[in-house]
Amino acid sequence: MTEMLSPGAVIGILGGGQLGRMLSVAAARLGFRTHIYDPAEAPPAGDVAARVTRAAFDDASALTRFADSVDVITYEFENIPAQALDLLQARRPIRPDRRALQVSQDRLDEKRFLAGLGLSVAPYAPVDDRASLQAALSEVAPPAILKTRRFGYDGKGQALVATAEGALPALEELADAPALLEGVVTFSREISVIAARGLDGAVVCYDPGENLHERGILRRSTVPAPLTTAQRTDAALLAGRILNALDYVGVMGVELFVTDDGLVVNEIAPRVHNSGHWTQQGCVVDQFEQHIRAIAGWPLGDGRRYADVVMENLIGEEVSEVARIAGEGASAIHLYGKRGTRPGRKMGHVNRVIGPAAR
Amino acid sequence: MTEMLSPGAVIGILGGGQLGRMLSVAAARLGFRTHIYDPAEAPPAGDVAARVTRAAFDDASALTRFADSVDVITYEFENIPAQALDLLQARRPIRPDRRALQVSQDRLDEKRFLAGLGLSVAPYAPVDDRASLQAALSEVAPPAILKTRRFGYDGKGQALVATAEGALPALEELADAPALLEGVVTFSREISVIAARGLDGAVVCYDPGENLHERGILRRSTVPAPLTTAQRTDAALLAGRILNALDYVGVMGVELFVTDDGLVVNEIAPRVHNSGHWTQQGCVVDQFEQHIRAIAGWPLGDGRRYADVVMENLIGEEVSEVARIAGEGASAIHLYGKRGTRPGRKMGHVNRVIGPAAR
Repeated sequence: MTEMLSPGAVIGILGGGQLGRMLSVAAARLGFRTHIYDPAEAPPAGDVAARVTRAAFDDASALTRFADSVDVITYEFENIPAQALDLLQARRPIRPDRRALQVSQDRLDEKRFLAGLGLSVAPYAPVDDRASLQAALSEVAPPAILKTRRFGYDGKGQALVATAEGALPALEELADAPALLEGVVTFSREISVIAARGLDGAVVCYDPGENLHERGILRRSTVPAPLTTAQRTDAALLAGRILNALDYVGVMGVELFVTDDGLVVNEIAPRVHNSGHWTQQGCVVDQFEQHIRAIAGWPLGDGRRYADVVMENLIGEEVSEVARIAGEGASAIHLYGKRGTRPGRKMGHVNRVIGPAAR
Repeated sequence: MTEMLSPGAVIGILGGGQLGRMLSVAAARLGFRTHIYDPAEAPPAGDVAARVTRAAFDDASALTRFADSVDVITYEFENIPAQALDLLQARRPIRPDRRALQVSQDRLDEKRFLAGLGLSVAPYAPVDDRASLQAALSEVAPPAILKTRRFGYDGKGQALVATAEGALPALEELADAPALLEGVVTFSREISVIAARGLDGAVVCYDPGENLHERGILRRSTVPAPLTTAQRTDAALLAGRILNALDYVGVMGVELFVTDDGLVVNEIAPRVHNSGHWTQQGCVVDQFEQHIRAIAGWPLGDGRRYADVVMENLIGEEVSEVARIAGEGASAIHLYGKRGTRPGRKMGHVNRVIGPAAR
């Protein structure tokens, strides 16, 4: 057991969006100070952080000063350039570590890693270039989705391949980036498990929630998801297996498809996850505090669900409905303090408490 | 109904201690930015605020700049100098307003106000100087407590008058400050009601908690307090009456004694209150967010109790027990980020969730 970071220690967070913002508040609650690193002006997390560095991820001297000012480093997004990570990890521990980032930064590595653990994933084949596209089509028959190996999120970096003829245009749409062709999985539900692993190896899983996506963006998570006890157990065991295999420290979001043949892993995110926001109203220790506890070497907290919750994202102009929502009973509003509203931009979320959890 | 402050608006908070800190986080959650005004270096709220002004309360130019930078002003403590309030309220609304501050800054005014509403208070008599001490003793027989009219908190500014002979030494102990002599009330329990009133006049009361004080400092609050339904209703009605009489906007803490003759009002605090910290784990909308909603002209949120909670303060060196407490199930830790530990200093609190609220 490594030593616990003491209150007063400084937690460095790469990325100052809404996840960094909610991590910063959770860290403060445990008596830590936070230092946010973000290239953007006025990042949402900056309003609730002790310190903010505005600099690019290729600014070696800013990265060095940042690392030297903190006790441990974590992040709110996975697409951090490798050179930045090299520099930072030479100075301070990064949690979760490189292995988790490596696996989740690259969709092909991720699939191989998950399949290597014996977990079910969608059928897939690498598409390195136009030449390998035909081979991929012979392995994975359309309808399928062509996905870039790197830098995809919220439905970005994806193109539908409805028929074999559509494959080349899809690759062109993705600017010939290294990709993989992924078979479409027939599922009855999309669910996710938010799991945490401490520095001591202890694992805590939150109850799975059912997710509804619209245009590639999470619309709503409902907890509990309507699952059998066996499915619930499978989901937790599977998440624990992934975390252990990576010797992971922190919170991870594991997205799953519920199919007739069992659970299929869609993707993993080595960070707190939008589909885990319900824990803010549903649990004594939410996913943000759980992540901070883990990376600070603290014991993990109580992740039991005390309430049934429906989490709904406020996307783009929907944030203007906040006046109405504020008048609803049993609704907790969480706004991100973003300065501008754009279509598809996550501006906040609402946790509607449906009632106490059935025991 | 006055207009709602929009997300992005700036809330000015006078005082950057733990209450200001938790108010700041609640404000951020609703999309507001906060500006803390505090004379101290590195106030706890500064770690989670968009902006901090370090200046004295008699610095007119700093106060002016502060007022001009915010949309509404609130405070975390009641002993704000009158001149500062004069200057601030000429520029921006202060909520709760001067009337609430005036009544609660002065223990004699407070008693008169409460008695004027027909509420029960402890027997009291003014002690303006040594000459009036004898008259006070003839009205209020010892054992009694001599309390300064102003600047008392956490048991400060109080001296026990066990016998008539002890009265003069007690007044000397208080440096002959204007005071009142207050009879000792025989009570079975100390409870408090945290109540909120919106800009539209709506009132929401949280369930009363039972408080245990040690050496004048709150040790623990237990919710629900063991009360009859009639007592519970009385407490809420009485709190509502106080808020309405003051045309109050914001959260108020009302401390009560439970006696054989009904509820006796001990004191009121025109702000969020230590005995309301349990709401962070017990309710969908806690006292901090409720206060921000009120002063921002938003509808009040759901104040129903969803869980039974025991709140315990971490005082002085007790904060070092946090490592052990972190390993407990169902305990939420809240540390204030204070740089130094002193005996009697509130360093944090723990909300222990006992279980879902009985319905």
